[in-house]
Amino acid sequence: MPPPAPGDREARRKDVSEAVWTVLADKGFGGLTLRAVAAAMNVSTGMLMHYFPTKRALIAHALDLLEVRTAERPRRARPAEGLPAVRAMVLDILPLTPQDTARNRIWVSSWDIALADEELASEQAGRYARLRASIRPHFEAAGRLAQLADERADAEQLAATAVAFTHGLVVQALFDPGRFPKEVQVAMVDEFLGSLGVR
Amino acid sequence: MPPPAPGDREARRKDVSEAVWTVLADKGFGGLTLRAVAAAMNVSTGMLMHYFPTKRALIAHALDLLEVRTAERPRRARPAEGLPAVRAMVLDILPLTPQDTARNRIWVSSWDIALADEELASEQAGRYARLRASIRPHFEAAGRLAQLADERADAEQLAATAVAFTHGLVVQALFDPGRFPKEVQVAMVDEFLGSLGVR
Repeated sequence: MPPPAPGDREARRKDVSEAVWTVLADKGFGGLTLRAVAAAMNVSTGMLMHYFPTKRALIAHALDLLEVRTAERPRRARPAEGLPAVRAMVLDILPLTPQDTARNRIWVSSWDIALADEELASEQAGRYARLRASIRPHFEAAGRLAQLADERADAEQLAATAVAFTHGLVVQALFDPGRFPKEVQVAMVDEFLGSLGVR
Repeated sequence: MPPPAPGDREARRKDVSEAVWTVLADKGFGGLTLRAVAAAMNVSTGMLMHYFPTKRALIAHALDLLEVRTAERPRRARPAEGLPAVRAMVLDILPLTPQDTARNRIWVSSWDIALADEELASEQAGRYARLRASIRPHFEAAGRLAQLADERADAEQLAATAVAFTHGLVVQALFDPGRFPKEVQVAMVDEFLGSLGVR
């Protein structure tokens, strides 16, 4: 395949990203190789090396792509304050649609390489800190609005607990989608938040 | 290195397992190669191929080892019924010691290869079902003992929620051990179970 004309470069770049995503959703980071991406695009691995001269460059692109697609995913409106806002944030994370499932499957897969690499592990720790920080204000509001059963509960700790519940549910649902269809996941979220709230 | 004498075989087998464990704890399944295990043992990869003729054999051994070491880990006594028994089970899973941390880090790492392989994914789904089934009776007892805030709560769903909370906390703690020392993890468990219990 000849090198693309300048006008085609952007389109080609999108094709490459789409192929990387397809491989990740199917095989995870453990199966992410130049050969697998080339096969998904029906091009030579030589062509792909223009984009990714090293395995590390391919992994870096995959992680960027995951970050961007997570940031740009469609989200629910956040109309309500306090616990209903936490509910919307948790539902926005869970694997309730095929797209959400693919994204979560890729995140879970990324934990293996991230734990093995100090820099990636530190980035992931930062990502978790930001996620907790984005949920915490809603628990603070829930406290002010007298929505919480335990008035003295610490909003930061509740945020860590909500993130824990959510990601642990993600993993169980990825392995057993038949046991955790959308309605079961939503019922679990409602029961979990219900247990934190005034009864 | 010459092949071991028959009497040495068992000792050599233990050395191999120990080296596989060391590599997994350090680099995860993504970094598990014959070369890495051979380097950890200071032997040739050729020697190791007597034990693992293929990469798949090495992975199978690693997963067996993880299963065995998880089953054989020391556990807390289960003196109490209901929610205190759930508490002991959750604490037995969390990364509260270096050994627990290594084991959890390897489990989290295994999710990447398990999601990419239909047979391994099905085994992991079964493992989750058994874990939920082992916690469920304690929630049923909690219900009978009037320990639960919501008398109509479903024990199977509570078990799934407890597993979700636990594994999501595992992942956050692995990435940020400074933020989640033992006392924070234990406080989160107590708050989480407290929210399910009668106040």
